[in-house]
Amino acid sequence: MDAMIMYFGGIEAGGTKFVCAIGDENGKIYARERVATEEPDVTIPKVIQFFRNFKVESLGIGSFGPVDLNKESKTYGRITSTPKLAWANYPLVQTMEEALHVPVGFSTDVNGAALGELYRGAATGLDGCLYITVGTGIGAGLVSKHQLLQGLSHPEMGHVLLRRHPEDKFEGICPYHQDCLEGLASGPALEARWGKPASELKNDQKVWKIEAEYLAQALMQYILIVSPKRIIMGGGVMKQEQLFPMIRARLKELLAGYLDFPELKERMDDYVVPPALGDNAGITGALILARQALEREHVSRP
Amino acid sequence: MDAMIMYFGGIEAGGTKFVCAIGDENGKIYARERVATEEPDVTIPKVIQFFRNFKVESLGIGSFGPVDLNKESKTYGRITSTPKLAWANYPLVQTMEEALHVPVGFSTDVNGAALGELYRGAATGLDGCLYITVGTGIGAGLVSKHQLLQGLSHPEMGHVLLRRHPEDKFEGICPYHQDCLEGLASGPALEARWGKPASELKNDQKVWKIEAEYLAQALMQYILIVSPKRIIMGGGVMKQEQLFPMIRARLKELLAGYLDFPELKERMDDYVVPPALGDNAGITGALILARQALEREHVSRP
Ligand SMILES: Nc1ncnc2c1ncn2[C@@H]1O[C@H](COP(=O)(O)OP(=O)(O)O)[C@@H](O)[C@H]1O
Ligand SMILES: Nc1ncnc2c1ncn2[C@@H]1O[C@H](COP(=O)(O)OP(=O)(O)O)[C@@H](O)[C@H]1O
Ligand SMILES: [Zn+2]
Ligand SMILES: [Zn+2]
Repeated sequence: MDAMIMYFGGIEAGGTKFVCAIGDENGKIYARERVATEEPDVTIPKVIQFFRNFKVESLGIGSFGPVDLNKESKTYGRITSTPKLAWANYPLVQTMEEALHVPVGFSTDVNGAALGELYRGAATGLDGCLYITVGTGIGAGLVSKHQLLQGLSHPEMGHVLLRRHPEDKFEGICPYHQDCLEGLASGPALEARWGKPASELKNDQKVWKIEAEYLAQALMQYILIVSPKRIIMGGGVMKQEQLFPMIRARLKELLAGYLDFPELKERMDDYVVPPALGDNAGITGALILARQALEREHVSRP
Repeated sequence: MDAMIMYFGGIEAGGTKFVCAIGDENGKIYARERVATEEPDVTIPKVIQFFRNFKVESLGIGSFGPVDLNKESKTYGRITSTPKLAWANYPLVQTMEEALHVPVGFSTDVNGAALGELYRGAATGLDGCLYITVGTGIGAGLVSKHQLLQGLSHPEMGHVLLRRHPEDKFEGICPYHQDCLEGLASGPALEARWGKPASELKNDQKVWKIEAEYLAQALMQYILIVSPKRIIMGGGVMKQEQLFPMIRARLKELLAGYLDFPELKERMDDYVVPPALGDNAGITGALILARQALEREHVSRP
């Protein structure tokens, strides 16, 4: 490794795997490793070991959630009420700070992916974007004027309520809301409704008509409420590329010309787009979180 | 007037009246005038005349919309596609700047009200809040980490889609979406559905059960998407105070314990609240927009 380059560490902490990477300021990745998500006592020592082999200036983590992002909170840096019980309340940030002695930036996986796509992917040149993943769960992160949106909590956009498609009698699988967006349109919801994994349903038109309806309704709510500069749709289910034109067309119908912006009219093809970074959006974002953590450290300890 | 005090001008520009005021930094109001909203050629000269009587450092305007808030746009500072045709495309900011030769801050009426409630009303001490008005129309503004949320457009939260209450067969009155929130739950929607002005429906329980259902659904979407620190509900329809406990109770049911924050559980009474400033939220916010415009001017021309 080149001694003149600053190296950053990134972790995309997911429910099935932790992707760990070493990269530089420009998003170039020098080393990468996947560690299976087992119990923290098994997974975290392997993650720490990976980073011990490198000299990083700081670390960024984009994590599955919900997570506590409120720096004034006693439980800042923890995964909170996850159904993966071994990880509930696990002090992820604190453990990594104590092991590596570097500043740690922390956010959700989708917030990380939104940063990755904004600065190195499908939204470069803009000052914000919304990134939504449609996979095992549905979640989204928003950057607006270069800031991640955060209130009481990080966004939980996957659980918005929808109008039922008249041909869809499936009851939904969200343990909290039954037929919210995640309950009706996530990968596992597709599998439960149709009896086959989503990846094997490609040729069934009705599957994607209903899926596009729900995703278009969700995007409509996001546009009316936060008005993103661009919407990037990733995750396993969005590998079904036929969804993109269907979602755009239905979204236009739903908006009914109400918002008079070219992005939502003649330029819709550039407004709702797949990730330019593909599966690298999350880890690229984690490296950006690392760099931001280092910058904050320099401001607060000049 | 005291020569040591800095005076600011504020305008709450509404569809029926322009409220003009002179105030100081602390939100104290020294003079106020209402000018009816007729054609711009009639209304604006009266507004200018009012401010000519005072020496203000800057002016803030919270306006009915939609408005163009994008400073890079050629139509910045205009009301855009309003159904009030005489005002469509009217250069409100530019006209006031040319008349008064002071910096002008500009935002929507509900963004202004959100700032007013945040710094001088029901959300003081927090770093953000959501203000929603339920009146002739339904609109909302969000402050997050002291910034007004703005993307492609300002928020248009009044037009979110809802699930129909099973007992409600009313078709809705939104000219774009028919039965969006505004189409079902605004003051004119109540009047069209029940055949009487909303203010005369106080004792009809069914009216408020359906109204509370729709408003609770909307708040659920806002909470999942932007997670406000507090929600302030104003406007004519919210004068029906019995709505508050009904909305809070239904919102709790809809969230179903999903978000584990005390604000949304045991402290819900402090989370969904009426405006502390009453009908002064908008004009107080306009004065804050004025002060912010002056501060920006000092930063950019030191
Ligand atoms: N090609 C595909 N077409 C449709 N669905 C897919 C495809 N690949 C994966 N999925 C679905 O996406 C989900 C996994 O989402 P993914 O984004 O890959 O991971 P995760 O959400 O767990 O991080 C699974 O439910 C799976 O059925
Ligand atoms: N006490 C009341 N109870 C119920 N609805 C009311 C009441 N007062 C006014 N409204 C309704 O609110 C609407 C006017 O909203 P308001 O917020 O006062 O003004 P605007 O939205 O035009 O600025 C009207 O449709 C009216 O029917
Ligand atoms: Zn849900
Ligand atoms: Zn509408």
